[in-house]
Amino acid sequence: MDSYVIGVDIGGTGTKYGIVDKDGNVLHSSSMPTNTHEQVHTFIDELYVRLSELIEKVGGVGRIKGIGIGAPNGNIYTGTIEYAPNLPWKGVIPFAKMVQDKFKLPVKLTNDANAAAVGEMMYGAAKGMKNFITITLGTGVGSGIIIDGKIVLGHNGFAGELGHVIVRNGGREHKGTGLKGSLEAYASATGVRDTAIELLQETQHSPSLLENYPINELTSETVFKCAEQGDSLTNEVFEFTGQILGEALATFVHFSAPEAIVLFGGLTKAGDLIMKPTRQAMEDNLLQVFKNKVKILYSDLQEADAA
Amino acid sequence: MDSYVIGVDIGGTGTKYGIVDKDGNVLHSSSMPTNTHEQVHTFIDELYVRLSELIEKVGGVGRIKGIGIGAPNGNIYTGTIEYAPNLPWKGVIPFAKMVQDKFKLPVKLTNDANAAAVGEMMYGAAKGMKNFITITLGTGVGSGIIIDGKIVLGHNGFAGELGHVIVRNGGREHKGTGLKGSLEAYASATGVRDTAIELLQETQHSPSLLENYPINELTSETVFKCAEQGDSLTNEVFEFTGQILGEALATFVHFSAPEAIVLFGGLTKAGDLIMKPTRQAMEDNLLQVFKNKVKILYSDLQEADAA
Repeated sequence: MDSYVIGVDIGGTGTKYGIVDKDGNVLHSSSMPTNTHEQVHTFIDELYVRLSELIEKVGGVGRIKGIGIGAPNGNIYTGTIEYAPNLPWKGVIPFAKMVQDKFKLPVKLTNDANAAAVGEMMYGAAKGMKNFITITLGTGVGSGIIIDGKIVLGHNGFAGELGHVIVRNGGREHKGTGLKGSLEAYASATGVRDTAIELLQETQHSPSLLENYPINELTSETVFKCAEQGDSLTNEVFEFTGQILGEALATFVHFSAPEAIVLFGGLTKAGDLIMKPTRQAMEDNLLQVFKNKVKILYSDLQEADAA
Repeated sequence: MDSYVIGVDIGGTGTKYGIVDKDGNVLHSSSMPTNTHEQVHTFIDELYVRLSELIEKVGGVGRIKGIGIGAPNGNIYTGTIEYAPNLPWKGVIPFAKMVQDKFKLPVKLTNDANAAAVGEMMYGAAKGMKNFITITLGTGVGSGIIIDGKIVLGHNGFAGELGHVIVRNGGREHKGTGLKGSLEAYASATGVRDTAIELLQETQHSPSLLENYPINELTSETVFKCAEQGDSLTNEVFEFTGQILGEALATFVHFSAPEAIVLFGGLTKAGDLIMKPTRQAMEDNLLQVFKNKVKILYSDLQEADAA
């Protein structure tokens, strides 16, 4: 009789969950909101109710071997979620233990971006590679670093927080972390929106389709839609974002000399609009020994499936 | 009968060499210039003559098991030195093979900073640690990264080039690499001198003891001597250098979550003058999960001995 595992990918806005077989096939999956739950226990209660339906569909809890959870600031060593800037629950949360007590199943919790990186190595664009970095460009910027075929966890389990490296010293403030000029403040959905607003507020900006929208309703999707129509100001937004992202990728290459960098997440849908300036800025900032040697790949996997 | 190994540490200005016993004790050591040799083969010829004297002192070549070489841009996979910006020999040099042919002894070549990092783990400040980063602040900025007790080499063997990460986008140009705003352009001996010159050239700068020296004779040592006497402009130089170095250290912490960062090299002699602003800038740019958790240590070992 086949057995399955449950995968849960907790994001700042929503949480995706599914039941996966031993070959990585997703049998059932769905999603629920994260940010409507100010209390972590009401979140776990809702997750329990929703997952119980899926568990029945695959033949009951006897078929489930365990639960794997990817969460922002998830610590694989302790099973806790610690000071996650993009989650409503503050401080140190013993999340794995709380889920284990509720479901009466073994629980493994890890950083969401690390889970995605391992997924890429097993089933995705980086299959067979031993040295690569995954970067998720979504609501935030997550990352997972694989060196010699193993995920890098570091001394306290929190290695690979590449969204929080400083790329413009004294630059844009990140509301969640208080850091100034970090990558996530620019190369995320929020960052793209903020860059568009900044450019619109310059006195001598290019005329733009974005001016048809109320400024507080702008999103990265609006920016992308206008850019697709050849709007020059929104093109500048992606040029600027790509420049910063490319510089950051060069820094990461100088650190771990990866074979490839695998990009995920909403911003990659902008395709060449963002990737051309990203690749150019990365190459411009690399030492000779790395020039034209590091691949930039898009993930083949759906974000939730990878995790 | 005891056997020994030869250690050679090739730097941009000079090369240190010595004979070491199995416990890491240096029996004999000396140094010779690197930058007077425009041709790599005359360099190896001189090294051979000089080392032969030391080899005789320990009982002849029969006692020598092999030669370990640390070199900038040294590639452990291929034994080559590739495009080293701070060495007189350009392109890709099959250095390990050339030395092996000359000495008729087994040769291991690695990156000089990686060799230093392994030395730290075996005998130095990081003894017993599994996750740390060493940074050499000398003529250039070198680095070695240890993760889970192993040196990080990366896909092409050139991981850990942290001196070349961009810390001020579009900033000071590095003459060797052409990169703009890299760490080495600021947090090296040359960088400190260049910062001093820039501050002296500002129209409204503080009065400074440095004005007693011809500008083309300024060195990082001059800057350090004046700073020790309480000179306020030279103090600004170390504040600025420490600020940039600390921001870079925060980036490295977000990457691999080390237990400690071990600093080596000439600039560390400036002590608190540079370390106070460095530590402050690092802490200011760290996520909550890392704050006050990462040690900054000075190396116990002599640079040459470590390598």
